[in-house]
Formats: sequence, C-alpha cells, structure tokens
Amino acid sequence: MPLIQFVNRVWFDAGATKRIGAELQRLGVKRPLVCTDRGIAAAGILDQVKEHWPEDLPWIVFDGTPPNPTEAAVKAALELYRSEGCDGIVAIGGGSPIDLGKAVNLLASHAEPLAQYETARKGQGKIGKVGPLIAVPTTAGTGTEVSVGTIIVTEDGRKSTIASPYLIPNAAICDPELTLKLPASLTAATGMDAVTHCIEAYLSPLYNPIADAIALDGLKRSIRDGALERAVADGSDINARSDMMMAALEGALAFTKGLGAVHSMSHAAGRIEKLKLHHGTLNAVLLPPVLRFNAPHVGTKLDDIAAAMGLKSGGDVAEAISALNRRLGIPASLGAMGVTADAVDEMVGYASDDVSTLTNPVKPSAEDYRALFGASLT
Amino acid sequence: MPLIQFVNRVWFDAGATKRIGAELQRLGVKRPLVCTDRGIAAAGILDQVKEHWPEDLPWIVFDGTPPNPTEAAVKAALELYRSEGCDGIVAIGGGSPIDLGKAVNLLASHAEPLAQYETARKGQGKIGKVGPLIAVPTTAGTGTEVSVGTIIVTEDGRKSTIASPYLIPNAAICDPELTLKLPASLTAATGMDAVTHCIEAYLSPLYNPIADAIALDGLKRSIRDGALERAVADGSDINARSDMMMAALEGALAFTKGLGAVHSMSHAAGRIEKLKLHHGTLNAVLLPPVLRFNAPHVGTKLDDIAAAMGLKSGGDVAEAISALNRRLGIPASLGAMGVTADAVDEMVGYASDDVSTLTNPVKPSAEDYRALFGASLT
Repeated sequence: MPLIQFVNRVWFDAGATKRIGAELQRLGVKRPLVCTDRGIAAAGILDQVKEHWPEDLPWIVFDGTPPNPTEAAVKAALELYRSEGCDGIVAIGGGSPIDLGKAVNLLASHAEPLAQYETARKGQGKIGKVGPLIAVPTTAGTGTEVSVGTIIVTEDGRKSTIASPYLIPNAAICDPELTLKLPASLTAATGMDAVTHCIEAYLSPLYNPIADAIALDGLKRSIRDGALERAVADGSDINARSDMMMAALEGALAFTKGLGAVHSMSHAAGRIEKLKLHHGTLNAVLLPPVLRFNAPHVGTKLDDIAAAMGLKSGGDVAEAISALNRRLGIPASLGAMGVTADAVDEMVGYASDDVSTLTNPVKPSAEDYRALFGASLT
Repeated sequence: MPLIQFVNRVWFDAGATKRIGAELQRLGVKRPLVCTDRGIAAAGILDQVKEHWPEDLPWIVFDGTPPNPTEAAVKAALELYRSEGCDGIVAIGGGSPIDLGKAVNLLASHAEPLAQYETARKGQGKIGKVGPLIAVPTTAGTGTEVSVGTIIVTEDGRKSTIASPYLIPNAAICDPELTLKLPASLTAATGMDAVTHCIEAYLSPLYNPIADAIALDGLKRSIRDGALERAVADGSDINARSDMMMAALEGALAFTKGLGAVHSMSHAAGRIEKLKLHHGTLNAVLLPPVLRFNAPHVGTKLDDIAAAMGLKSGGDVAEAISALNRRLGIPASLGAMGVTADAVDEMVGYASDDVSTLTNPVKPSAEDYRALFGASLT
C-alpha cells in the first residue's frame, strides 16, 4: 500500500482505513478518543471505520463537533477524553473534527485557554510535545491531515489559527472510499477549498519551489484533468475521489509557504456563528475577486496557474474560477450565502489581523478589504 | 531566510551558512565533530564555514573521507569523535563526507559492523534514535542532506545502502555560495547525479504523485531552464548554483519513491576501489542505456520527462541525455572511465542485489545487467 511520507506518514489508498489498528499499535495508544461529528455518523462513515476497529480497543466517541469548531466544543471533548482516561486521538471527518481533535490534543497537555497559542499572537513557542493523533479525512479539501495548523473559534470570538510542528498528526489515513458518500454540494465546496489552497500557496511570495511544484500538480489533477467536476457529477467515481484526496493533500503540503487574503476573509466570515458558513464555499466565492485584486502583484504566476488549470494561453484565471463555481453549483456571492453589509466592518478587522494576510502577494489595507468584501456581497 | 520543511529543516539561501551556530544551539550540541574531506579543505570551503563558526564551540575536524566512503574511514572518524568527547556532527562536503557523517553518527550509538544495517539485508529495523547531525552540502547533486540514506563501502566489500528515518539530518544548511568554487567537471558530474535522481524516481512504479511533481520540477530547473549548463559554463553564476542546489534537493525528495537500475549499476561500479569512480559521472554514463532498456515498460512517462526537459514533442530522452553528457564533458562510456570487461561478472552480481533494482520499472535479470554493462563499456 502506498506510504507517502513528507511531513508525516500518509497511508494513501482505497481501503487504507484498515491501517488504523496498526498505526494505533505503533503509537502505543490503548484508549483513543474518536473525534467526529453527527453528519459523519449519520452518513454511515463512522460505521465504515468501526468495521476495521481493533477488537481489543474501546470505542469512545465524541460526535459533537460543530461546523466551525469552537473552544467550547473542544472543552466538551476534552472532558470526555479525561473522564475516559484516553491516551490518544483518532479524528475522523472533514476539517472540523480533525481540527477539533488537534485542539483537544493540545489542551490535554497544555493549559487553557486556546487563544494564547494563536499564531497571530506569536503563541507558537508555547506549544510543545502533545499526545498521539491519527487523522482520517472523510472529505477531500482541508488537508489538515498533513498540516501544522488547527482553526478554532476561540472563546474571545476570533477564528484563530494555531500552528506548530507538534500539531502535525502522527499519521494520516487517506482512504478515498470514505469520501464516496459525500454529497455533491460538499464535494464541490471541499474540493474548491483544496483548489484555493493550491492557488493561494502558489501566489505566496515566499521562496519554495518544491511547494510551488506540488501546488501546480494539485491544480492539474483537480481542474485540468477534471477530477473535481467528475467527483461532483458522480460521487461513486473512485478514481476522481482518489485524485481529489491527493489534490487536498497537495494543497496542504503547498501551503507550508502560506496562504493569502482569500483565507483571511474566509476566516473572518466563517466566525459568524449564526450563519454556519462553509469554509470551502467561502473560499470559492472569495477567490475570483481576490485574484483580480492580486493580479498586478504576482508577475507571471497567473500564467503558470492558467497553464496548470488547462486554460488557453493568457486565459483569465478569475473568470475561469467563477465559471467553475457556477458549474459546481456554488453560490455567486457572500450575499447569496446570507452575509449582510452590516457584518463588513467587523470582518475587515478580523481579516486584517489574520495570519494569512502576511503571505498575500501584497498586504491589503483595511480599505482594500472593505472594497473586497463589498464586491463579494452581490 | 527561506526555511523549507518537508522531511527536515532546510535553510536555503545564499549565506545560509551563518545559521549553523543557531542550529547547533537548537540541537544542544556543545562539541560537534566536523566531517569533511581534504578537497573541501584545499578549496577553501572549510574556511568559508569556519568564518561563521560559533566562537564558544571547539573546531574538531576529520578530513579523511575517501571519494567513496569506506567503513574503515567511518571507524577512523568515530575514534576521533569518541576521543574528543563529541556530541554531534556537522558534515560538510559532497555526498561522501555527509554519508560518512551519517554512518559515524549511527555507529556512535549502535554496534558495529555497518553491514548488519544494510537495507538489502532488511537491517532498517535495527536502527534507532541517533545523535544530532547537520548536513552542509558543498555540491549540488546527491541530496543526501534531506535523505534517509547513506552509502558506504562496508568491510565485506559491498557498496551498501543503509537507510532509516533516524538517519535524516536534523537540519540541512543549503548555501549555494559554498558551491561557487566547485570545478566545472565536478559541477557537471554532481549535477547529472541530481538529474538521474529526478528521472529514476519519476520512472519508479510506486504511487507518489507528490514526488513525481517534484521530480519533474527538478528536470525543468536543471535542464529545460539550463541551470546545469550555466553552472558548468560559469561557476560564479549564483542563480544557476542556487537552482542546481534546489534541483539536488528535489531529486532527493523525489527518490523517496525509489531509484532504479542506473543506481544499481553505478553502486556496483563505484565499489571498485582502485578506480575511485565518481558516482555522478557513473550515473550520467549509465543513464542513456538504462533509459533505452526501460522504455517499453514505462507507458507515457518518457513523454512527461521529455516535456519537463524542454524537448520537442516525442523527443528521445536517452539521446538528449547523451548529447547533454557530451556538452558537459562527461565520458562517453565506462571503458573511457577505466572499467574493463573482466569487472562485469562481479558488477552484475552486485547490481542484481542492489536495493534500487526493486524499484526499476522492470526487474533486470542477470543477463539484462550483463548486456547493459556490456553496452556501457564502449
């Protein structure tokens, strides 16, 4: 079975789920806490994993992860972790349960509250060794299974990025079979998350040709070769599912060089709890206006992206993404997602403070962010 | 300064040498052994590093690394390591001193002899945690600064590949300024080593699209964009030197999916001690015949390689490599390097047993290897 090891161990194959037992044994975990959400349980995916669960290990499940995980949910899971005497975590789901699992793992050995560890507050140095964690993605999008980061709505109301090499999962089990039941709308939204990672990482000004090569390969796979549209059209297409799972992995390996203003804005909108906005959908909607804003500051990089996407020479990447969004059934604006003009002021503040703003090709001013949010509302 | 972290910490920039002190401090090393060779010392490169050496650390140097490092040299360095009470290693040089440093580091905490750890003898499981090691490459070729492996002529006369995640250097300092004085002939030979890594890794049948993308980027950089020929033509071209150092890094990240018959044959020839053959030169000479041998077994992968090299559609990769070798002043055959027909029998045996044979697109038989060596002699 393919083992892909760059930042961590990644078992990547249809059926890879059966490796969970061996990985838990390798890590010496005797009482893992399963972190997941009710959607994963309802879709029968949790049962798919349970089929391969080692007989001698208890099945202790926290399924209360909200769509944008909160510190309150992290603490609820931590309480279960402690009362059950857990010694490790298996996080099963999209980005939310895996990010929640990473945060539970952090607080199992580090003091509360989470805000002190936020990257934007230079909290990385306070993070040391944590317990073992295995990530089992059930969407092809975030790539959090190979990344240093977790994104949590902390108790102070911020959507905080917390990152440290110690938070990288000890192993990722990437089994495209677990994504076969993902509905078309979520396939589209999470897929566009991966696409946005590839594009924003490639446009980050940091020098990292290795990450750049990985990012362009993710775009070829997902867009030029059509895996994203095929996976949306036919969820049971295992080859398309596998290619999208690889593109998600590639997006996250690429964004070791940072992301950009799409993510800053997406995090700012994602923290509006009553709307429960999907991170990938937000990225998809925000990508075209941010691409137009960044265009004068990226040299010939948009040509490279256009070529990787399979556009004709000189093709308009922003327009191609808008057209792709339409074909995928993604809303045309933040307004169509329920965001209203009165939220803009607060979103501008949060976006400006977001750590992804630092690696946008040019630093957007508050006025720039105001204009970008304004343009995205309708 | 760019920090590139996939398998390990890589400081990559002109002037990165000044990071050595901070890395030694981070690793808690108080008495490092510098492993290098006399060529590095004679070229003044050791002085370049010493300029940035932390004042409070001793300067303990083993400079007796032979061109193809032997277990005897490893033991001589280990004796110095022990008598000086060393607690870490800084390996400065081409592949030989870094590979020697890795082996010294292994034997500093593990029992002799080295042969028991050989990958081909399933020795990887015997390798556990080793002491801290920083790799400072002075050629752009082997990529051993980011790889799991070391290649040593063990006391039983084999050119043994010994590999373990524990042998990955804790940090690599990739400073293209240290390669500016490398003579054109060695620039060519080490550069062709990196090129061979990219090609053989791409042709390995293991599934790893991430490694594949990195491999093709290495070929674009070194061949299509001309960095290798520019570095050979003008050794002081820092951009070409930097791109070749990146291509070397990329080659080694790519060969996490394995190498092929070129390396099996090159290792078999490289162990003939009296000839002191250069590994990169051997790879360059052996690459065209092995490409022709593999061609029927690689699907359309040679077209991808041709495109990455900038050849016209349908271009002959083997012929293009031969032509490149000629322009670089690389010998046309093993015969021209001093290898004679009476060595073939023994080389066939060693090549067949080499671990790289396992990831060649098709497993060459002894007769295949005999024919390939025969064709390479003239």
